[in-house]
Amino acid sequence: MSNSDNNQILKNTNAQILDEFNASVMFDKELYSQDIKGSIAHSQMLFEQGILSKEDKDAIHNGLLQVKDEIESGKFEFKIEHEDIHMAVESRLTQIIGDAGKRLHTARSRNDQVATDFRLYVQEKSLSIKEQLKEVINTFISVSQNHTTTLIPGMTHLQHAQPINFAYHLLAYANMFKRDYERFESSYERNNYSPLGSAALAGTPHNINRESTSKQLGFTSPTINAMDSVSDRDFALEILFNISTTMMHVSRISEELVTWSSYEFQFVKMSDEYATTSSIMPQKKNPDVPELLRGKTGRTYGNLISLLTVMKGLPLAYNKDTQEDKEGVFDSVKTIEISLKILNEVIKTMHVNIDRMNEACKIGHLSATDLADYLVQKQNMPFRTAYYITKDVVAMANSLNKDISELSIDEIRNSNEQIKDINDEIVMYLDLKSSMNARNSFGGTSTKQTEKQIEILKDWLKNK
Amino acid sequence: MSNSDNNQILKNTNAQILDEFNASVMFDKELYSQDIKGSIAHSQMLFEQGILSKEDKDAIHNGLLQVKDEIESGKFEFKIEHEDIHMAVESRLTQIIGDAGKRLHTARSRNDQVATDFRLYVQEKSLSIKEQLKEVINTFISVSQNHTTTLIPGMTHLQHAQPINFAYHLLAYANMFKRDYERFESSYERNNYSPLGSAALAGTPHNINRESTSKQLGFTSPTINAMDSVSDRDFALEILFNISTTMMHVSRISEELVTWSSYEFQFVKMSDEYATTSSIMPQKKNPDVPELLRGKTGRTYGNLISLLTVMKGLPLAYNKDTQEDKEGVFDSVKTIEISLKILNEVIKTMHVNIDRMNEACKIGHLSATDLADYLVQKQNMPFRTAYYITKDVVAMANSLNKDISELSIDEIRNSNEQIKDINDEIVMYLDLKSSMNARNSFGGTSTKQTEKQIEILKDWLKNK
Amino acid sequence: MSNSDNNQILKNTNAQILDEFNASVMFDKELYSQDIKGSIAHSQMLFEQGILSKEDKDAIHNGLLQVKDEIESGKFEFKIEHEDIHMAVESRLTQIIGDAGKRLHTARSRNDQVATDFRLYVQEKSLSIKEQLKEVINTFISVSQNHTTTLIPGMTHLQHAQPINFAYHLLAYANMFKRDYERFESSYERNNYSPLGSAALAGTPHNINRESTSKQLGFTSPTINAMDSVSDRDFALEILFNISTTMMHVSRISEELVTWSSYEFQFVKMSDEYATTSSIMPQKKNPDVPELLRGKTGRTYGNLISLLTVMKGLPLAYNKDTQEDKEGVFDSVKTIEISLKILNEVIKTMHVNIDRMNEACKIGHLSATDLADYLVQKQNMPFRTAYYITKDVVAMANSLNKDISELSIDEIRNSNEQIKDINDEIVMYLDLKSSMNARNSFGGTSTKQTEKQIEILKDWLKNK
Amino acid sequence: MSNSDNNQILKNTNAQILDEFNASVMFDKELYSQDIKGSIAHSQMLFEQGILSKEDKDAIHNGLLQVKDEIESGKFEFKIEHEDIHMAVESRLTQIIGDAGKRLHTARSRNDQVATDFRLYVQEKSLSIKEQLKEVINTFISVSQNHTTTLIPGMTHLQHAQPINFAYHLLAYANMFKRDYERFESSYERNNYSPLGSAALAGTPHNINRESTSKQLGFTSPTINAMDSVSDRDFALEILFNISTTMMHVSRISEELVTWSSYEFQFVKMSDEYATTSSIMPQKKNPDVPELLRGKTGRTYGNLISLLTVMKGLPLAYNKDTQEDKEGVFDSVKTIEISLKILNEVIKTMHVNIDRMNEACKIGHLSATDLADYLVQKQNMPFRTAYYITKDVVAMANSLNKDISELSIDEIRNSNEQIKDINDEIVMYLDLKSSMNARNSFGGTSTKQTEKQIEILKDWLKNK
Repeated sequence: MSNSDNNQILKNTNAQILDEFNASVMFDKELYSQDIKGSIAHSQMLFEQGILSKEDKDAIHNGLLQVKDEIESGKFEFKIEHEDIHMAVESRLTQIIGDAGKRLHTARSRNDQVATDFRLYVQEKSLSIKEQLKEVINTFISVSQNHTTTLIPGMTHLQHAQPINFAYHLLAYANMFKRDYERFESSYERNNYSPLGSAALAGTPHNINRESTSKQLGFTSPTINAMDSVSDRDFALEILFNISTTMMHVSRISEELVTWSSYEFQFVKMSDEYATTSSIMPQKKNPDVPELLRGKTGRTYGNLISLLTVMKGLPLAYNKDTQEDKEGVFDSVKTIEISLKILNEVIKTMHVNIDRMNEACKIGHLSATDLADYLVQKQNMPFRTAYYITKDVVAMANSLNKDISELSIDEIRNSNEQIKDINDEIVMYLDLKSSMNARNSFGGTSTKQTEKQIEILKDWLKNK
Repeated sequence: MSNSDNNQILKNTNAQILDEFNASVMFDKELYSQDIKGSIAHSQMLFEQGILSKEDKDAIHNGLLQVKDEIESGKFEFKIEHEDIHMAVESRLTQIIGDAGKRLHTARSRNDQVATDFRLYVQEKSLSIKEQLKEVINTFISVSQNHTTTLIPGMTHLQHAQPINFAYHLLAYANMFKRDYERFESSYERNNYSPLGSAALAGTPHNINRESTSKQLGFTSPTINAMDSVSDRDFALEILFNISTTMMHVSRISEELVTWSSYEFQFVKMSDEYATTSSIMPQKKNPDVPELLRGKTGRTYGNLISLLTVMKGLPLAYNKDTQEDKEGVFDSVKTIEISLKILNEVIKTMHVNIDRMNEACKIGHLSATDLADYLVQKQNMPFRTAYYITKDVVAMANSLNKDISELSIDEIRNSNEQIKDINDEIVMYLDLKSSMNARNSFGGTSTKQTEKQIEILKDWLKNK
Repeated sequence: MSNSDNNQILKNTNAQILDEFNASVMFDKELYSQDIKGSIAHSQMLFEQGILSKEDKDAIHNGLLQVKDEIESGKFEFKIEHEDIHMAVESRLTQIIGDAGKRLHTARSRNDQVATDFRLYVQEKSLSIKEQLKEVINTFISVSQNHTTTLIPGMTHLQHAQPINFAYHLLAYANMFKRDYERFESSYERNNYSPLGSAALAGTPHNINRESTSKQLGFTSPTINAMDSVSDRDFALEILFNISTTMMHVSRISEELVTWSSYEFQFVKMSDEYATTSSIMPQKKNPDVPELLRGKTGRTYGNLISLLTVMKGLPLAYNKDTQEDKEGVFDSVKTIEISLKILNEVIKTMHVNIDRMNEACKIGHLSATDLADYLVQKQNMPFRTAYYITKDVVAMANSLNKDISELSIDEIRNSNEQIKDINDEIVMYLDLKSSMNARNSFGGTSTKQTEKQIEILKDWLKNK
Repeated sequence: MSNSDNNQILKNTNAQILDEFNASVMFDKELYSQDIKGSIAHSQMLFEQGILSKEDKDAIHNGLLQVKDEIESGKFEFKIEHEDIHMAVESRLTQIIGDAGKRLHTARSRNDQVATDFRLYVQEKSLSIKEQLKEVINTFISVSQNHTTTLIPGMTHLQHAQPINFAYHLLAYANMFKRDYERFESSYERNNYSPLGSAALAGTPHNINRESTSKQLGFTSPTINAMDSVSDRDFALEILFNISTTMMHVSRISEELVTWSSYEFQFVKMSDEYATTSSIMPQKKNPDVPELLRGKTGRTYGNLISLLTVMKGLPLAYNKDTQEDKEGVFDSVKTIEISLKILNEVIKTMHVNIDRMNEACKIGHLSATDLADYLVQKQNMPFRTAYYITKDVVAMANSLNKDISELSIDEIRNSNEQIKDINDEIVMYLDLKSSMNARNSFGGTSTKQTEKQIEILKDWLKNK
């Protein structure tokens, strides 16, 4: 809405303002296909139950398909007088097929109709978001496969802690997105019940068949209690939470991409497509895209809080407050759809600076604990002795301006009297790649374990 | 966005998706007038400082006014390639006036430009929301003036507690909206500083005059530190919080209107315009409008949390995350504008059911504490004695199926031996209106105090 | 913390303040039993793998059980110097058993230890909350069984809409709590993986057996990627969301209880135990308890937002920010535990005012649509004709100050010429109980369908 | 609460659970000093108005001071039976002084008492937080004074953008905290009104003097409408918002400190006191403290949302939901108090690595725009020509592995034919310090402007 439109609000007549305030058609038109799908199922059932004639049913089906066509081809003009998508579709249907259009509403209420449409939308989007998550997981796996021996410092507190491989780091995210997938999967199953036939709040005296509409619409079965069904928005809260959690994960990898793109780190470079550049300084690449991904987390949190607030303390069964349930869901869905699409490409196309990552591992004496472990395990030293020797070796390395992984066997031996004859295999133990591969417990960072993790995820993907 | 558009996202080329992801023009076009205003001020200052020729300055001013005209008349077509409103305006300007258009950007960066435009928007809206709040307060006062002697049960825990007058109840809300006004007033003052001239983050080598642009744009003075200025979004958080708090107040009166509109209460009836009715049952009026007002609180809370989340942990100075600052503010502003407009009409046009309110006061023996007070203060009884007598009088009233305010002097005297000769003025003390008027302390509910409160608010309004 | 303690903060030495700031022991002591459980499993595994001697293992087990005993008997004094519960337990263990205590930490890091302890806590609480939900559902069913023929007005917009039975209304909530149960069940399954053995972030060079500890602790299997495992807090977010949604449902029934307790409604009365009363006015009962239940929703929403905020944009693997993950979860868990316990009693003990509910059904001509339906279905009238006749009958009822369910056959016949000979069965159709029972579609409000719903829920409970 | 206590909940009798559920004394004891202060003022006023005898008033004052003493010396035992702090104080008072203690409650209700106590708390804390903010601003100024010529790369998108001085960067935060101060100042003024004397919701029949209590308690004047006064929690929302915004700023500097502490940046080092170290690797310092500061932002956002949720849709005047208003405020206040204290020390004691910051400025050709500006302004070149020449000079620098600020005059002249005779002053223009000082517009980064900013802030502080 432009500013001039906006100021318009204050000048309109009360009636116009009220229409604008009450009407939802300008956003709930998003539900047109679900609304038409639901109406086709409902009228088919009415026909099967002998409530609607074959002629009426056929007219309704054809009419609805025509309305759908008009909407998708852009011919349909949504007007605020339609109030909501259900009215917009029904009134156009009645224009096309006459009074039969009105009979479509037999044994149905706006309350169960909107509950059905909105739930269908959430269910469809849950499925498509799951597909996107699979693609993202697949991309993380693909990139990982090239980096199972690429060293990068494993960090805690943004400080170098232990040498790991880059594939292993990326797979942490693949596991997060796997859990996200499972959340969408689970909320889909838990909410896959049809509210259609609940009518206003109490069911209907008509001899309807809710199993039929439920089946036609792909639901598992009808919901159990109509009063609950028209006022339940748990399914909407669940998708909002699932999206928030996924976007939280997106914000974490985005933060890392931004940090890694800094001049100081230079671990990765966004591909030209996904970074803005300065024409004078071609080496400068702003990681705008991951920044925006990170920022978009905010709106998904906000949408979750919005609906939780709306639902708080609402008496049964239907209250107009609930009209506020949709825009936030549409916004969060759109946000995650484009964010996952973009993240997928960003990861696929980023340049990994293997040399810089490797160099970085040489800061912080990351294999110091390997030395201490060696002394305790292989030399049977008490831990305290091993500790002091390690401290001396680190001090020696510092004095030579080297990392302990770069010390020669002589330099090591000269660090402390007690290891002056130490076996030269110690050099190998201090090697960064060895150190990484030493962490070979299940779930650990060794190349072997990392490859196993890739296999586990690939198997999982295959079965989804 | 329609569903088909939405699915489109997944089918577009990567480049298109990225454009859509990055571009803000489709929502920040809301800022067109502020952008043009800011550019006029900036170019005027550049001219005054000898940085821009008179010809260039004049061409820019005329060009910008033409762009403004094109936008307001709907001729201007916003395209995603424009990226943002600043580019959209500048590129059209350059089309119209040629290279002079590019010189407009001298000594200015996108960072301080967007900070200025957005702040101007928030400041303008703070002023117009203040005006709306004054109107709402005025309406509450007007309606109150007719009800300073209309009894209604004052409630705690939704239970009748003490008889008050309806004006007094409404004035509680007038006081809430007065505080809301003061919050907008205070955040306006606190944030009325011009970021223009901050450039990218460090100021500019050009000999600019920030006092000049600040003055032209109605700011108090320029901001102090450019780095802070381009990354500060406190002003946006403040308007989001102010709107949330105002909408919280709106949700409270809305809740009361919904409850009061129930068959059980029937204290008020929404005017036909602001309630939906059922054609078969003309007496049924759904309070949809207050319900929707109550529901709209949710989105304003969500928008506040969204921006708080975006800003958390952002390093200085500018990050693309901040692009997420505007949509929530636009949405909250639009929400409060229409909500206050609607609330104003709802209050103005509601039917107050004086009789029902009055009848309700007779449930709950609301003047029982007046009796106890009378016995203690006028009869010098110990509180404990007064208490037991009052309990007996209440029991008598219950046995007669009356409220104690309806007891005759004989019925009162017969309740308990100790008051068998009580002065007949006690009947007056038990009267509900007397009880209401007895609460005559400053800020209390007596008609006299209520009238004084009206005067205080009217005086306040006069000075705003 | 008292005010004086609080002011103390500002007077303490820096070192003390810093200790207080950093230490978590004063709240994470909540995890003592999980910490000890985890350490017993870990040491058992170390022994099985030949890393720990039998003597050491036995000493550790006995020592840990002694520490547990000391904590549970209140002998253990937690001090801020302990920093966190893990240190507190370990340092006491070492006091008791000497150096063997330190060997417990072999092949384990604080990072995987805290991840394990906290996850165990969340899993245990998920199970116990599920049990409480079953109890609450059972209570709703029990009360429902007494009210399958108790009429109450089914509401939309807090306006009488259709006559339903009270059991049916209560069962709407039973269905909400059933979904809540299913969410806890699903998040339990999804997160039932053991992070123990992830070490700092990369696994360990020790020959550990994560399957063993996983099995001992009741987990399904070990987590896949150690880096993810030490930084994953999805399980905590899920319990926070599940609790928020449950409390949202609690807030809805609480709102209804408050409204129903008002003088105007008088549908229910809280039992004396669960309402505060005024000694002078014994009939006044404040529904404090449902109000507080409703209010407690706020803190659970806040705790959810807190952790979402903490996790936003955190780089891998461990950052101290994550220490902020626990207090909110503890608070939400405590809140739901006590709230469900209280709600259960409130529902069990409330007095249902059947007469008032029944009387209320006679306001609003709730069977008007039954009349219209009858005319269309049984008399084959066009809907428009039926509509006008119904309007006339409603008008007749209004003129007689009756509800249409109270009209005699003559009064009905006199309403409109076209029904002057209408079959007297119409009186039965206008009867409120008949109207309720007419809504006999699956999930509808008829007594038959309500009883079926009770059976479905009882079967479900039996299988849980 | 320990786990065993917690499980206790589920085992207690219903009565115990209910007491625990309803009672607030275990947290609102925080308000003991405000409660006593309020009672002293109230009884003084009752005495002045002739409602209380001198003897009673004196007994009450002395008794209250004794209770205060007992609380502060730790002698007072708070018990859950006291329900709330008001009861706890009053019942102890009555124990000490007998019946006079009960007369203290004349013309006062729990509703205005709690509103007064809580508001006094918020007002006192607003003042003390303001003092802390002044101290923090002062610290930022002090550290800044040592760094007005210390170069550091000014960043956008975490990419080097322009050379600035470190003082200037720190002053951005001083300006944020200045706005925070102003917010506390403004909310203090706006809410400095006394609700005491509002009684339950309607005022009182007693001849009280609200001006007297208002004055005694340091308020500006009494509130206007008693019904609003007992249900108003705007003051609490404001302090929660003010704290959230301040903590958002704290999270931003914390994020920067964490990033700057990384091996890759090494711009700052936390002092030993404010970092945890590894004994083997003494050079490793984990920035735990800024991480925890960053994390603590989450809880303050959560507390804000909690209270907004509680207040949404509450009818007037008092509802038990409001009991949930305090814990979040206490928690946020405690959080900001300790966080500002800690931040102050962290900034004061951090080691600034001037050399690393300076070296970092040489990455990114930060003075490239200065060259282009020079060519345009001093050589009157068209911008396009200047642009291509600059590109060539950058390319030359890259080929020499230098930053353009390090190029000799010959190297510059050799970059492009058109500048082969350029004046050697260009070397000075490319110098990083010159580049920084060139940005000399008001609010800019030049040392001169930075010093001016310090003066402005010092003047401001002096007047606060």
